[in-house]
Amino acid sequence: MKADDLQGIFEMHQAMNIEVFYWWCTAIMFMIHAGFLAYEMGASRTKNALSSGMKNILTLAAIIPAFYFVGWWIYNAFPNGLIPIDAAAALPWSPSMRPDVDDMGTGVFFAAFALFGATTGSILSGAVIERIRLSAFLILAVVLGAGVWILAGAWGWHPDGWMLAKLGYHDVGAAGVVHAVAGFFALGVLLNLGARIGKYKDGKPQDIPPHNLPMTLIGLMMIIVGFFGFIGGCIIFNTGETGWTTIYGTRTNLSAFAFNTLMGFGGGVIGAYLSSRDPFWTISGALGGIITVGAGLDLYYPGLAFALAASGGALMPKIGGFLEKRGLDDAVGAFAVHGFCGFYSVVLVGIFAAGFPNVGEGVPDVSFSGQLLGAVVMALTGFIPGWGISYVLKKCNSLRVPAHVEVLGLDLVEIPAKPYPETAPSSTSASSLASTSKPEGTTAQATLR
Amino acid sequence: MKADDLQGIFEMHQAMNIEVFYWWCTAIMFMIHAGFLAYEMGASRTKNALSSGMKNILTLAAIIPAFYFVGWWIYNAFPNGLIPIDAAAALPWSPSMRPDVDDMGTGVFFAAFALFGATTGSILSGAVIERIRLSAFLILAVVLGAGVWILAGAWGWHPDGWMLAKLGYHDVGAAGVVHAVAGFFALGVLLNLGARIGKYKDGKPQDIPPHNLPMTLIGLMMIIVGFFGFIGGCIIFNTGETGWTTIYGTRTNLSAFAFNTLMGFGGGVIGAYLSSRDPFWTISGALGGIITVGAGLDLYYPGLAFALAASGGALMPKIGGFLEKRGLDDAVGAFAVHGFCGFYSVVLVGIFAAGFPNVGEGVPDVSFSGQLLGAVVMALTGFIPGWGISYVLKKCNSLRVPAHVEVLGLDLVEIPAKPYPETAPSSTSASSLASTSKPEGTTAQATLR
Amino acid sequence: MKADDLQGIFEMHQAMNIEVFYWWCTAIMFMIHAGFLAYEMGASRTKNALSSGMKNILTLAAIIPAFYFVGWWIYNAFPNGLIPIDAAAALPWSPSMRPDVDDMGTGVFFAAFALFGATTGSILSGAVIERIRLSAFLILAVVLGAGVWILAGAWGWHPDGWMLAKLGYHDVGAAGVVHAVAGFFALGVLLNLGARIGKYKDGKPQDIPPHNLPMTLIGLMMIIVGFFGFIGGCIIFNTGETGWTTIYGTRTNLSAFAFNTLMGFGGGVIGAYLSSRDPFWTISGALGGIITVGAGLDLYYPGLAFALAASGGALMPKIGGFLEKRGLDDAVGAFAVHGFCGFYSVVLVGIFAAGFPNVGEGVPDVSFSGQLLGAVVMALTGFIPGWGISYVLKKCNSLRVPAHVEVLGLDLVEIPAKPYPETAPSSTSASSLASTSKPEGTTAQATLR
Repeated sequence: MKADDLQGIFEMHQAMNIEVFYWWCTAIMFMIHAGFLAYEMGASRTKNALSSGMKNILTLAAIIPAFYFVGWWIYNAFPNGLIPIDAAAALPWSPSMRPDVDDMGTGVFFAAFALFGATTGSILSGAVIERIRLSAFLILAVVLGAGVWILAGAWGWHPDGWMLAKLGYHDVGAAGVVHAVAGFFALGVLLNLGARIGKYKDGKPQDIPPHNLPMTLIGLMMIIVGFFGFIGGCIIFNTGETGWTTIYGTRTNLSAFAFNTLMGFGGGVIGAYLSSRDPFWTISGALGGIITVGAGLDLYYPGLAFALAASGGALMPKIGGFLEKRGLDDAVGAFAVHGFCGFYSVVLVGIFAAGFPNVGEGVPDVSFSGQLLGAVVMALTGFIPGWGISYVLKKCNSLRVPAHVEVLGLDLVEIPAKPYPETAPSSTSASSLASTSKPEGTTAQATLR
Repeated sequence: MKADDLQGIFEMHQAMNIEVFYWWCTAIMFMIHAGFLAYEMGASRTKNALSSGMKNILTLAAIIPAFYFVGWWIYNAFPNGLIPIDAAAALPWSPSMRPDVDDMGTGVFFAAFALFGATTGSILSGAVIERIRLSAFLILAVVLGAGVWILAGAWGWHPDGWMLAKLGYHDVGAAGVVHAVAGFFALGVLLNLGARIGKYKDGKPQDIPPHNLPMTLIGLMMIIVGFFGFIGGCIIFNTGETGWTTIYGTRTNLSAFAFNTLMGFGGGVIGAYLSSRDPFWTISGALGGIITVGAGLDLYYPGLAFALAASGGALMPKIGGFLEKRGLDDAVGAFAVHGFCGFYSVVLVGIFAAGFPNVGEGVPDVSFSGQLLGAVVMALTGFIPGWGISYVLKKCNSLRVPAHVEVLGLDLVEIPAKPYPETAPSSTSASSLASTSKPEGTTAQATLR
Repeated sequence: MKADDLQGIFEMHQAMNIEVFYWWCTAIMFMIHAGFLAYEMGASRTKNALSSGMKNILTLAAIIPAFYFVGWWIYNAFPNGLIPIDAAAALPWSPSMRPDVDDMGTGVFFAAFALFGATTGSILSGAVIERIRLSAFLILAVVLGAGVWILAGAWGWHPDGWMLAKLGYHDVGAAGVVHAVAGFFALGVLLNLGARIGKYKDGKPQDIPPHNLPMTLIGLMMIIVGFFGFIGGCIIFNTGETGWTTIYGTRTNLSAFAFNTLMGFGGGVIGAYLSSRDPFWTISGALGGIITVGAGLDLYYPGLAFALAASGGALMPKIGGFLEKRGLDDAVGAFAVHGFCGFYSVVLVGIFAAGFPNVGEGVPDVSFSGQLLGAVVMALTGFIPGWGISYVLKKCNSLRVPAHVEVLGLDLVEIPAKPYPETAPSSTSASSLASTSKPEGTTAQATLR
């Protein structure tokens, strides 16, 4: 065979291998959602378990088509800021947005991005369980998962994004564009949503324990498995002689990602355990640790990644506890794990990898100021619409279920089934039901004080 | 290096990449069985939970060797109908059916097909829980998983199958050959097996709720993760300049599959939710939606795939409810999800992709009549042996456990263990046990009326 | 393009495909740990469930950094026995132990090996639940997971290991170096740790049932999914014209692994079921079967693999029961599944594959005596440090929690949370708590008699 013919076949097989890679990224990312389902049902009280689960299933189902019809176009149209560029190929009626035997790429890239979007929805989902209206939640989740985060992505996680061009922004593992954006969006929603009835007594936070903590821990571990799909989806598998790059076009490889994902896992768990001794926070530390090193996954010395992840894991429960004392009822610590660690992750790159050269004419190097500003942009891009939309929903009295529904449990109203029809409730839970049936002593709408 | 030498190395690496792809398909498909295990244990009442789980584990363990010794040969020998062609290489004593350093392919293809077969067994498994004898079930599962479906596969999911040659049959995602066949087989068995004691009172269906609905939902989500292995296993990764094709030799790629698998997921969930509001049906809609678009996964515009999946998801609970009212006690809706959606999927290709040209001399184009006839062939190929073998087993009094065993629970007789020895049963479940201990008012052997 | 240029690009893509393969092996292996988490929490009594889970999470988090700082160097430094060779590139301050755009390999290989190490820790973890001190356990797990097994790996699972060079040792699936080593290490620890309070009455073993057997079964099935990452990680994906080899440099491929992994699964389950009828042992048989054929995964005829796995699966519960009667309280049968089947697996290669030629000058062929001696080396390499370190910890009174803590449950002391705060305990479990509160009739420190 001639070299040219061989080259043709080889290039096709390169493209096929790329498709296979992102196909598995997508498949493994579905495990994130199996995990979130287990995690959030377990973290709810029995009376809300199925409503929480239903919310998770519908999140994924609603974000996928929304991302197909709108999200993918946003990503391609808004790298410059708020004025769209031409991105006709990403419109849902474009030939590239459908099966095309000559386009080995768009479908799998779309799929991986849609799953990123679904992840933002699931991050929000956990924070607001046990009192949000399903309809309000779905509006918020779709806006976040098919709009807000992908706009942030166009800015900061795109080879032509303005945050790269102006700030030298570096966030290879999407710690800012996915986790910080979703965490701050959740924070905004929580401020309007308020605490669950019974969460505060005389202003002091009360423990509302998960009804099934083992299920929660297993769910979190499944999310970690799925995270390898997410982290894998953050590396760009290029054809030709380019090979692996980050989304910013700088060279990297999966070995770098493997070192630091593993060390992030270990550091995060150990940091969270030493800081909290709590099983829920400890396994959340696995996520928090990986997120903490996520923005610089390609750059850190693995020993440093371990230390940084440990610091993120250790701070995370403190942040959660601090906000809880001030009236923020984040049922699963979503802001602490995703919002705080995502923000922290972006800033850390500015401290430990400042000066790292970006590629592209006129693109500034990685810098502390660029990363700090970038983190603030991410936080605001998440917070403002989260707060704003939930404020409007609240004013329309559509954000939260009525107090008597919350006390009786959302499942009674929303779901024609019981989670464990053959299991007896404990007397504790019976009496807690009794006590929560007199909600007059508690404020149903707490806000950050 | 010379181009010819390079070509040799390149071709070996192509073959290796193909092996890797189907290896992961097989691995991810094991998640289907982890999921079915969770799903069916959760869907049982506590008294039958371990028996249901044991059935799942043994299904997989029995179908694998049966598929090795018989199934793989059936696939290779029967593309023409009921008269075998020479397929000596697929016989279990053939050199290709064992480790061979020069055969990078047979083992991984065998593995992927064996897991397809195991999936048919697990589809049957859910429908018949809580009253079938383990021995009878294993006979039925092995016949289905290593015989019936793979015969249907030789006909309709094989490059030389007569259904392609005569009907232009198109079923790339195995919606007909796996799901319709298994679903109609289950229907046949259910007609002879009859309803669970207590399922009908005065002819009206009673709710027999899953003892652990969260476990059921998590299990279904794990099945979805595993489905990416299944769908991946439906694309043919060819060496040389051919690249991706369907099993029918038409060009396609994973991007097409990714678009429509995701949109099928989303549409199915939303359709099922709007039609039922029930968490169990809603998450089953994910499966139903993917199956509904499965036969035409390579062809549909993704927006159409969403709509078709939504229709499948919405119809599925209606079909299930319709049959339940007529005496069919399908404990997990297996016929509605797999049988109906699989059949529907094949027919839909005839409506929305009629005229799609097949490759191969004399092979007719895709047509409505070909697809409808194809769907009927699949339904009958599943139904007839399912009904027939279970009829014989019933006549031998070997199909169903005795009534008193069913009332006490299968675990008491079959399993030397309790699922939750430390958990108190609810008074409801205690009283339901009491009421079901007087089965005289119910018919143990209901049939479709 | 010229052939030489094409060769350069092709070789880079070969290296990328290799990275992708081990990346997914690592990801899928995390499922082993999600599975062990479910499995060991389920296998504990409710009062210890969270402590068991915490142990699992911390095992993984502690072994990863330990393996980074020490384990990888041990593997590279000790192929000759106990005298290290130069392995500077594997030291944690070496340039290859960090992100390096020109090193596509070290990170993913490290990751896969670290996960092998974590698996040994999880094997130990199950055996010792419900009475070991967390601190003592973590010391033992880190020594095993980042030291002992990888020393054994350097000897017997390394292209230059002395066991290959002197004995012709063949253990492609790491049945000896991972499973036998970890199982015998656990045996050594159990001898010093002693049985749980209440396990023996008048010298007769009592059943201490899992509090959540369905969770245990699901966990084991998740471990099986993860095993495909483990088995995949046992094949060497070489660049250039070498292609697939075993760690010993002999040719093989994934098709061979696929045949025998599946048949090992099927045989193990069926053997264990016929021998025990117990759901826990039956699904453990899946692991036991794959381990039984693991050492010769590349060599066996699949029908033989089925039979061997069935024998391993059938013997496994007998071994477990035999040791239990003699005072060994192995809470999950870890020695029987991993220690026995791993040992047996290595010996079986000496029976059924004796004479298989190894590559390399002067390397002896596979032989019965070489395999038997190899299995003994593995058993002793695990047993001696396991027994020795736990003996020292016992003498320091640091191995086991105080008896009153054990009776009340480890969670009360270690964990600020309850697993199921809303579920009522059964009267059985309440009374069993009462009876175990009088531990005077039982020996807290049983040893093998």
